[in-house]
Amino acid sequence: MYIDDKRRTVVKLTPNGILGFDKGFIKHSDIVGKRIGEAVELSRGTKALLLDPLPIDYASLRKRITQVIYPKDASLMVYLAGVQPGSKVMEAGVGTGLLTIVLARVVGDSGVVYGFDVDQECLDCARRNLELAGLTKRVVLQLHDVRNPVELHDLDAVLYDLPDPWEALDTAWSVLRTSKPIVIFVPTVNQIEKTVLAMRKKGFIDIHVYETLMREYEVREGAVRPHTRMIGHTGFVVFGRKIEEQLR
Amino acid sequence: MYIDDKRRTVVKLTPNGILGFDKGFIKHSDIVGKRIGEAVELSRGTKALLLDPLPIDYASLRKRITQVIYPKDASLMVYLAGVQPGSKVMEAGVGTGLLTIVLARVVGDSGVVYGFDVDQECLDCARRNLELAGLTKRVVLQLHDVRNPVELHDLDAVLYDLPDPWEALDTAWSVLRTSKPIVIFVPTVNQIEKTVLAMRKKGFIDIHVYETLMREYEVREGAVRPHTRMIGHTGFVVFGRKIEEQLR
Amino acid sequence: MYIDDKRRTVVKLTPNGILGFDKGFIKHSDIVGKRIGEAVELSRGTKALLLDPLPIDYASLRKRITQVIYPKDASLMVYLAGVQPGSKVMEAGVGTGLLTIVLARVVGDSGVVYGFDVDQECLDCARRNLELAGLTKRVVLQLHDVRNPVELHDLDAVLYDLPDPWEALDTAWSVLRTSKPIVIFVPTVNQIEKTVLAMRKKGFIDIHVYETLMREYEVREGAVRPHTRMIGHTGFVVFGRKIEEQLR
Amino acid sequence: MYIDDKRRTVVKLTPNGILGFDKGFIKHSDIVGKRIGEAVELSRGTKALLLDPLPIDYASLRKRITQVIYPKDASLMVYLAGVQPGSKVMEAGVGTGLLTIVLARVVGDSGVVYGFDVDQECLDCARRNLELAGLTKRVVLQLHDVRNPVELHDLDAVLYDLPDPWEALDTAWSVLRTSKPIVIFVPTVNQIEKTVLAMRKKGFIDIHVYETLMREYEVREGAVRPHTRMIGHTGFVVFGRKIEEQLR
Repeated sequence: MYIDDKRRTVVKLTPNGILGFDKGFIKHSDIVGKRIGEAVELSRGTKALLLDPLPIDYASLRKRITQVIYPKDASLMVYLAGVQPGSKVMEAGVGTGLLTIVLARVVGDSGVVYGFDVDQECLDCARRNLELAGLTKRVVLQLHDVRNPVELHDLDAVLYDLPDPWEALDTAWSVLRTSKPIVIFVPTVNQIEKTVLAMRKKGFIDIHVYETLMREYEVREGAVRPHTRMIGHTGFVVFGRKIEEQLR
Repeated sequence: MYIDDKRRTVVKLTPNGILGFDKGFIKHSDIVGKRIGEAVELSRGTKALLLDPLPIDYASLRKRITQVIYPKDASLMVYLAGVQPGSKVMEAGVGTGLLTIVLARVVGDSGVVYGFDVDQECLDCARRNLELAGLTKRVVLQLHDVRNPVELHDLDAVLYDLPDPWEALDTAWSVLRTSKPIVIFVPTVNQIEKTVLAMRKKGFIDIHVYETLMREYEVREGAVRPHTRMIGHTGFVVFGRKIEEQLR
Repeated sequence: MYIDDKRRTVVKLTPNGILGFDKGFIKHSDIVGKRIGEAVELSRGTKALLLDPLPIDYASLRKRITQVIYPKDASLMVYLAGVQPGSKVMEAGVGTGLLTIVLARVVGDSGVVYGFDVDQECLDCARRNLELAGLTKRVVLQLHDVRNPVELHDLDAVLYDLPDPWEALDTAWSVLRTSKPIVIFVPTVNQIEKTVLAMRKKGFIDIHVYETLMREYEVREGAVRPHTRMIGHTGFVVFGRKIEEQLR
Repeated sequence: MYIDDKRRTVVKLTPNGILGFDKGFIKHSDIVGKRIGEAVELSRGTKALLLDPLPIDYASLRKRITQVIYPKDASLMVYLAGVQPGSKVMEAGVGTGLLTIVLARVVGDSGVVYGFDVDQECLDCARRNLELAGLTKRVVLQLHDVRNPVELHDLDAVLYDLPDPWEALDTAWSVLRTSKPIVIFVPTVNQIEKTVLAMRKKGFIDIHVYETLMREYEVREGAVRPHTRMIGHTGFVVFGRKIEEQLR
């Protein structure tokens, strides 16, 4: 549902649901039967468009209980992880589940995302967001601390958003297929250092640390310029690859 | 094939092929039969690892005949385009085909990438890179100027890397399903302006212009810092969505 | 007067003045006689420090009537302009006068800043800020549109913060000594283009366009990271040098 | 002497000196008597311009024996330090002396820069660069490790470019006047952490850590864009202020 840049949401229709904005509200039952792309009218006359949700739409969801991974980072992480249809990947911690949605979309019906978190509230929130996106069948959520062993093998990628990912490298190593990547998100530089040093010690190769800054531009005719304000920092993305045990 | 950060490539094995680095060479026939993750030895004793190629590995391919789209941009574009298994997408111009590879991986066997370029040499190069990646079956390459109409309909996304994308918006509009995105890469600010103004006139909504800067970090114990040199600019990514014709 | 990062100001003491913060107030008369570096106590007990103001303290002044030039840009502009003790420089438009303060500090008692603006309100505001900084004797403020000729010659630098600096290049050229720089601040990319093309046509050499991004870092033990939010854009700085008339 | 962006230098004329470029050479004696702004002709016919050197011209000097402080950082440091005519400031280590030149220009004849380094070769290089800039009279260079006490008092600013500035904070504190700033340049994030934690412990207030990124733009008519390559990292600038001993 799109009104303008600040009034947009992803919604799952329910029999008695009501969707409210500051510009008016609409009953879910008034949306049922409309096609994607059609316009509906809110109680106070404002027009709203029904759009097919894209990954970036989920990034603006308000049901957040943790710091979320931003589109600039989620897109890079999925790319670095090489996720594709059929991929079997592990994610910990899932937090609000926004990265999980992106992963689940790309792995398709033949793939699976194993999502771990130590916080049941996060798992519940992630589950609701996955339901909203219609992706629950591709995701196995589990309450578990991945610093302890996990009963998975031959995964195509591991993605971590943990406070101490260096404590969970043994798990990552044991679940990954040889040559497959681990992609880790950390917010501080100190975490970069600990993570990379531990990854080297563990035997991961091809280790890289990336940071992306995203600027938006505003366009008026004859006056193009970057936005005055921007997100100055979210976190760093650490990449590495597992190799054969005997080559470490 | 990975030796170190500067010595890596993606290779398709052929009966009499030879793969050479400054550190020595190896016959393709000596690689046949090895498993992913195994190490092989070059003529002068250097060890090289056989790895399963990830999208980012193709980004370092040397067979380039045009400016390529960098990982930071390719990952964002695929994310913004919402590409997923089964997606039918159009890309113009394909150039070296590196973005095509990323798209083709994600659309899976049930999807398709229609790739256009006005330069046969580009198409040939893209085809070779797609063969290398084993993805030719998912891609339809065609010599055509998309400023002229294209016989496609109900596509899930359009991705442009053209010098004058504002001249090809009619084509994009006609091939896109309602509510689906167009994602455009342009290197100059003047192109941003022309593109966005033309998109607004055409009726696209939810228009945004993004630029990402990527920094890499080097990690030594007790001495973490960004790399001294970085790519300062590649281009800008413009996003928009088609709406119903009568709502324009 | 410094309490903490968010509670700081530059103040000129007056007989009946009162200085108020959300943490309490203090009479100017209670500050008279204190030495720089001493602490004073506000009405509600909060301690405040008396500090000698630095250029960056003026940047946080609240008496702003126009967009100000930020420290990152002001510092670069003064550096590029090569301003030093004894320099005679021209600035237009002065706006709030914050760049004027930086210039006036550096030119010293033997130099002079000729400050122009088309808005009397700006000049009044700049004058008040210069009084606060005790620098009025080094500055000549004048209500004048520098797109029209100015009766000055042999200046060491020209600094512009104008909406259409390309219309004021004749003036800059006529007042500058040969080989001396012009430094121009503009917020949009379109203004860069018009400015640089006009500068080339006029004969300026060594033309460069710079943009600086400034990040701040937060430091907690074991957790160093850039601030989450930053100023994403202020403007661009264009530099050039005048040459001999006959060499154009 | 300016030919173009890549062919430029600052030169001190000597009786038998010769100045060579890849485009030809010229005897210093052929320059003597020319005025600033005039053009001279190199041996192979190329025209070169005689310009009055600006701070930024020294930044491109080739006599470098250490990593230099870039214009973007030097300009910010001098600004943050509040250096002005008459300022008495201390700098350690001086390295190649490029920041020393900027400082010496701004302090004027009534000010002084005390420059320290532990490497005689650096001091010699700095001295040569200061001679070139005609600024030796304003600078006192001394071979000394400022981690040990310095016999100076009531300075207006301290500027450090040292590997372990946290070991030299006692010295800075003892030489600074109350409320005056220390400005420190460090290349790694680990040094930020150690420096800031030590500054807090020592009693410095108003501590900030800045990093600037500088982009250059290239302007062709209808095609404005940032340069493809940029310096991705030089270092971080740490700022703080001394307060009264008893207020620590």
